[in-house]
Amino acid sequence: HVDWDASAAEKGGYAWFMQKEIAEQPRALADTLLGRVDESGRLSLDEMRLSDDELREIDKIVVIACGTAYHAGLVAKYAIEHWTRIPCEVELASEFRYRDPILDRQTLVVAVSQSGETMDLLMALRHAREQGSRVLAICNTNGSTIPRESDAVLYTHAGPEVAVASTKGFLTQLVACYLVALYLGQVRGTKWGDEVTAVVRDLAAMPEKVEKVLEAMEPVRELARSLVDARSVLFLGRHVGYPVALEGALKLKELAYIHAEGFAAGELKHGPIALIEDGLPVIVVAPSPRGRSLLHDKVVSNIQEVRARGARTIVIAEEGDEAVVPYADHLVRVPASPVLLQPLLTTVPLQEFACELAAAKGFDVDQPRNLAKSVTVE
Amino acid sequence: HVDWDASAAEKGGYAWFMQKEIAEQPRALADTLLGRVDESGRLSLDEMRLSDDELREIDKIVVIACGTAYHAGLVAKYAIEHWTRIPCEVELASEFRYRDPILDRQTLVVAVSQSGETMDLLMALRHAREQGSRVLAICNTNGSTIPRESDAVLYTHAGPEVAVASTKGFLTQLVACYLVALYLGQVRGTKWGDEVTAVVRDLAAMPEKVEKVLEAMEPVRELARSLVDARSVLFLGRHVGYPVALEGALKLKELAYIHAEGFAAGELKHGPIALIEDGLPVIVVAPSPRGRSLLHDKVVSNIQEVRARGARTIVIAEEGDEAVVPYADHLVRVPASPVLLQPLLTTVPLQEFACELAAAKGFDVDQPRNLAKSVTVE
Repeated sequence: HVDWDASAAEKGGYAWFMQKEIAEQPRALADTLLGRVDESGRLSLDEMRLSDDELREIDKIVVIACGTAYHAGLVAKYAIEHWTRIPCEVELASEFRYRDPILDRQTLVVAVSQSGETMDLLMALRHAREQGSRVLAICNTNGSTIPRESDAVLYTHAGPEVAVASTKGFLTQLVACYLVALYLGQVRGTKWGDEVTAVVRDLAAMPEKVEKVLEAMEPVRELARSLVDARSVLFLGRHVGYPVALEGALKLKELAYIHAEGFAAGELKHGPIALIEDGLPVIVVAPSPRGRSLLHDKVVSNIQEVRARGARTIVIAEEGDEAVVPYADHLVRVPASPVLLQPLLTTVPLQEFACELAAAKGFDVDQPRNLAKSVTVE
Repeated sequence: HVDWDASAAEKGGYAWFMQKEIAEQPRALADTLLGRVDESGRLSLDEMRLSDDELREIDKIVVIACGTAYHAGLVAKYAIEHWTRIPCEVELASEFRYRDPILDRQTLVVAVSQSGETMDLLMALRHAREQGSRVLAICNTNGSTIPRESDAVLYTHAGPEVAVASTKGFLTQLVACYLVALYLGQVRGTKWGDEVTAVVRDLAAMPEKVEKVLEAMEPVRELARSLVDARSVLFLGRHVGYPVALEGALKLKELAYIHAEGFAAGELKHGPIALIEDGLPVIVVAPSPRGRSLLHDKVVSNIQEVRARGARTIVIAEEGDEAVVPYADHLVRVPASPVLLQPLLTTVPLQEFACELAAAKGFDVDQPRNLAKSVTVE
């Protein structure tokens, strides 16, 4: 069990550790990217006890995680399937463990945990190894149990995370997921050297973009303060924006105890749209119009639909996306980025929003009720 | 587009079509099971344009659906993987369609839709067929578009469902999912004849058990009326109880416009437990203690945890499950049944609960705001 010494860590002028950790994200991302590429331009992991031949035999990937790390896993699925064409499933560790999942020696299990001590995840990975599956850990804590029991490890370099609600932990997990997907693409030859280099360059540009998002957060904080009496907030997204919506809702639940739920926007008409009433805040994560224009169009019509039913729409959209403007009561801009990497940017306003709203309600942002930083019991 | 003539259908003495359709479930289940087994004891589907050889080549199953049918798909995964050992993924049709899912000729796509006209699902199955995948439809409407465009069909025989919120449609979809899983097990030889017959017998016993659940619903209705001012309700489950929790929450959202959310109970400590406050109703779907005792123990401790934090616990548990008694403020009993078939029973009290609570609030139970019975646009 790893305990960060909260009293020793400095809040660096911020009222809450969470604010400090949100602000540290550009640096944490840069640190996690550091030293991943050797002189020949090839990616490497921190610890690797699997041969390239073994990795080439993998025919299925299962990402297992809990809480916020599960949302990183949902994003990983898109990157892994898109870059490697290996089928990828994502499952909550607590569910994975108690059914009889189909696993064999050709299954790679990716276990994501900030602390490296999450009990449900540890039990799940032990089960996977008993079935002969290989396990790759993504973890922020050197030498913790989960990486020790894994066949391969990629460490995130977020530094100590003191606030219970994960922020820089999550963003660095996303980066780690992208690197693992790229690494598999490199080993298996579905991504050529120049393509790997191009994505690594895209990733290297992200810390500065996150910095830009952070510089523009005052209106988001103001909006959060104005919604201090909101009884519920909905979050909508599609594609990689869907896990971001889930993460935004989880943060608001954890910190502000507000009934917040994230939905795949396409599911609206199949039920959740009944919840929309006058003034209900609905936060929409819009996909880039430079990706799939059809997908972008669908989200624009989802925004119209909820607004027509009285929702107060808060839209997170890429710079230059003009189609969302007429339907956004509040518009939050993020810099343009490759489609798959967008969650690194769109998550940040949702973190700020939850943090500020909880603080405005007078709650302890760093130590939400009922929650512990690292869940080392089941 | 199929439109049931609501004015012609009778409510049969009930105030709402939904109540009538809940009551019709034992009959709908029996009808869906009727005529599935030939003289030699073998299962058959309604329409089958795939050979046994083609079905034996299947190496992955993807269930796609929207809304309530998606929850049936989540249950199907457990049955398919347990009985056939073919890996099975479940995905929202609206998400499946807009990413680039990994599909080939050895992928069987199972498309679940009451109406057979759900646009997102239709577009998703067309995409799957373009990739060479086979499609099996589970549908309640003879000759509708989705079964017409599929390679194989199993029709549910729920009869016309008038209420927008699906009840007998859902329960018959569950039965259809079990039959499809068994059928695949039969064709591929992972289930022998006597085993298929045993499960068919278990299924045949379910209508009477559902009838027993229905006969004991007055306390659930009374509880629902007493919670007319509840602002939110949480639903917890594990294993096949998790999709039931999601379905219970969806019904409450659709009908009573209450912020209800379903969670995998193992995720509680990773965030949602922060929402628990004094008097918050938490409905827990307990797994059978005769299944995996470890799983049952975990749910009992989840109930204790939320109750210790002030929640008002409403527990749905099998007859004879004494371990939950000390922690249940309200206890709803369902007859014992095989673990995988339990959702056919545990869903019913959640339907009654949502229906009665919405009626007590004075809402139109059959026509919830903003919703249509069949979503034929995207």
